[in-house]
Amino acid sequence: MSDKLPRVPKGFRLAGLHCGIKSDEAKEDLTLVVCDHPTVAAGVYTQNKIFAAPVAIDRERTPMANLRAVVVNSGNANACTGQRGLDDANSMCQAAGDAAGAAAEEALVMSTGLIGEPLPIDKILTGIAAAGEKVAADDDSLLSAARGFMTTDTVPKLAGRSLSLDGTSVQLTGIAKGAAMIGPNMATMLGMIMTDAAIAPDASQAILSAAVAETFNCIRVEGHTSTNDTVLLLASGAAAGEESNSEALSGPALDEFGAAVTDICRELALAIVADGEGTTHVITVDVTGCESDESAREIALAVSDSPLVKTAIAGADPNWGRIVSAAGYAGVTFDTTQVALKLNGVSLYHAGEPVEFDAVAVSKSIRDERDVLVELSFGDGDGAARFWTTDLTTEYVRLNADYHT
Amino acid sequence: MSDKLPRVPKGFRLAGLHCGIKSDEAKEDLTLVVCDHPTVAAGVYTQNKIFAAPVAIDRERTPMANLRAVVVNSGNANACTGQRGLDDANSMCQAAGDAAGAAAEEALVMSTGLIGEPLPIDKILTGIAAAGEKVAADDDSLLSAARGFMTTDTVPKLAGRSLSLDGTSVQLTGIAKGAAMIGPNMATMLGMIMTDAAIAPDASQAILSAAVAETFNCIRVEGHTSTNDTVLLLASGAAAGEESNSEALSGPALDEFGAAVTDICRELALAIVADGEGTTHVITVDVTGCESDESAREIALAVSDSPLVKTAIAGADPNWGRIVSAAGYAGVTFDTTQVALKLNGVSLYHAGEPVEFDAVAVSKSIRDERDVLVELSFGDGDGAARFWTTDLTTEYVRLNADYHT
Repeated sequence: MSDKLPRVPKGFRLAGLHCGIKSDEAKEDLTLVVCDHPTVAAGVYTQNKIFAAPVAIDRERTPMANLRAVVVNSGNANACTGQRGLDDANSMCQAAGDAAGAAAEEALVMSTGLIGEPLPIDKILTGIAAAGEKVAADDDSLLSAARGFMTTDTVPKLAGRSLSLDGTSVQLTGIAKGAAMIGPNMATMLGMIMTDAAIAPDASQAILSAAVAETFNCIRVEGHTSTNDTVLLLASGAAAGEESNSEALSGPALDEFGAAVTDICRELALAIVADGEGTTHVITVDVTGCESDESAREIALAVSDSPLVKTAIAGADPNWGRIVSAAGYAGVTFDTTQVALKLNGVSLYHAGEPVEFDAVAVSKSIRDERDVLVELSFGDGDGAARFWTTDLTTEYVRLNADYHT
Repeated sequence: MSDKLPRVPKGFRLAGLHCGIKSDEAKEDLTLVVCDHPTVAAGVYTQNKIFAAPVAIDRERTPMANLRAVVVNSGNANACTGQRGLDDANSMCQAAGDAAGAAAEEALVMSTGLIGEPLPIDKILTGIAAAGEKVAADDDSLLSAARGFMTTDTVPKLAGRSLSLDGTSVQLTGIAKGAAMIGPNMATMLGMIMTDAAIAPDASQAILSAAVAETFNCIRVEGHTSTNDTVLLLASGAAAGEESNSEALSGPALDEFGAAVTDICRELALAIVADGEGTTHVITVDVTGCESDESAREIALAVSDSPLVKTAIAGADPNWGRIVSAAGYAGVTFDTTQVALKLNGVSLYHAGEPVEFDAVAVSKSIRDERDVLVELSFGDGDGAARFWTTDLTTEYVRLNADYHT
């Protein structure tokens, strides 16, 4: 997040406050977003078969063109809570709709935090009503709204972009939460990108799905997919004033808008990776030269998930064997005589054989910088993928072993 | 390993000695097995696309009926060593064949240790010749042979079974190596089961493949498949004396033999899991009620590989959410309303919802015992799988981050 907060896009008002889910009264645990007019919304959700009540509701509703409110709570995930959980999530939508002067079906809901515990629903409903009185479009509202997403995050995560599209000034502002290496429950990732651009529902869904595929879905922390992961794209269409609401972007302007969404998603995804308390390195895994992008993704994933690779980087060890052999078990067939590996730009492995290199210098380059670049190349085609992961430190294990349900 | 060593099966003589690969002269780093007569051999190998020279050679040769020698070295994996590595592995076979009075093609070779380093081949060839002079069938020879397999293992791993099959007393004796949570290179797993039963080559291959599928392939430590993993089954047929060599087991006796091979493989696999220096718990993951065994395996694997599950057990935390949600992202479709979970026999989750339980008592049951039982059941069919994994401790990370290439 840069020092200057991004602007709240036209058509949105927000508030974050403490309603009583978290024990610390200084911490926001509820965020309400009110849309001044019917707003387009798209969503991408966890692929976990065990998914939380809010995911069940939102997945049913998006893409939609009549969104009027989004309510988010942190501190309790409302997951594995059965019919009671669904009832509570619907009550939250009803309260959010009431606050926006709209119907429950015109609201979306996101939750993150402890799983298996019923929500303190009375506190939350009271909080939503109070938030409805507070919503505004200023810096303080945006910041408290972002804080309302946080669980073990150490900083609020915000990103913004301003564009001129078809002669209209457009704003995109995103909020995300996710605590990289620490997953007290399961490192739920929530994200919400608001924009005042005018986008058709189907186009917004396509843009969001594509953006998530190469950003949030390319960050690996511990490979544990949460029950609650949700990213929403909200488009008010208010950038050019009410009268132009219906002129949805198309052609090059839509492409430019899509690129900006991807850009914001990448910035927020990297902020999630970077925010692990146990993390000492952020590792970029670049895989090129594969038969297909899918093959490259499989290899990037195997390398990014390998505890041996992640501990090696934590120890500043240029252990090419762990990286190359992780690629070898990714389930992808490749020409082993064409494999090459660079670590922080230094060639360690080439044409399928180890290369002489200055291990002390490479080790120092890992130790001196938080960012580490792993480049694996193959000779099988043009397929490529880029993943981001973290190192694996004793601090990560201590935090996750010491956390108790 | 029990206090009493298993007997060396008839038809085999062994020796382990220090030839100079490891820096510590007190540690064996070379093992030679000589077969008195042509012996049946089957092998199961790493599925890593990057595999070591010995794997390339053995995979080509097995199943075979004319094995006369096996040579094993530890301290250097002869992996990622190109043509030089293949030449060295062939030289080792030649020397082992010479020691047994046989051809190079009648020998198999296994290596484990550092990767990417050329073998000190002269020391090894001298060592093989010396081992050829020493081979015997006594306890000391067996124990030193088992020590010759070890890398970071803290104890030699041996298991034996005696059976009476078709009126003949048969011995099976297995050796394995593998350091569970520590994989200085990549936790190579080597195994060798010797028997004096008479088994046809194809039957021995089928028996070994089936045994490995439900034992060595069901242990998960860090999910990193080595370049060198190899398990061999060697059958001399000498149990009933030379004249009966050709009467291979069949029918119920063959089934009983197969069960004993699986039994030995399981004992050795569990010994590998139990031997991690960083390990404080061995976790059995039992999955039942799935659509297929394959679905059950996928779920068992996801649970066994989850760092969040493994750190929870390290912290004695009965965190059912981490276990259930790991099942949820295994890529298997299941009826979420029929999911049930028991931890150390206590029901934590039933019919798709959390159950009230005494968290303090369950936590104590984890803390008090090294063995932890996770039972996940589904309502989708009869598919089942059992995996074994370890917890994830700060000690594991420290050992793997501090190890340097």
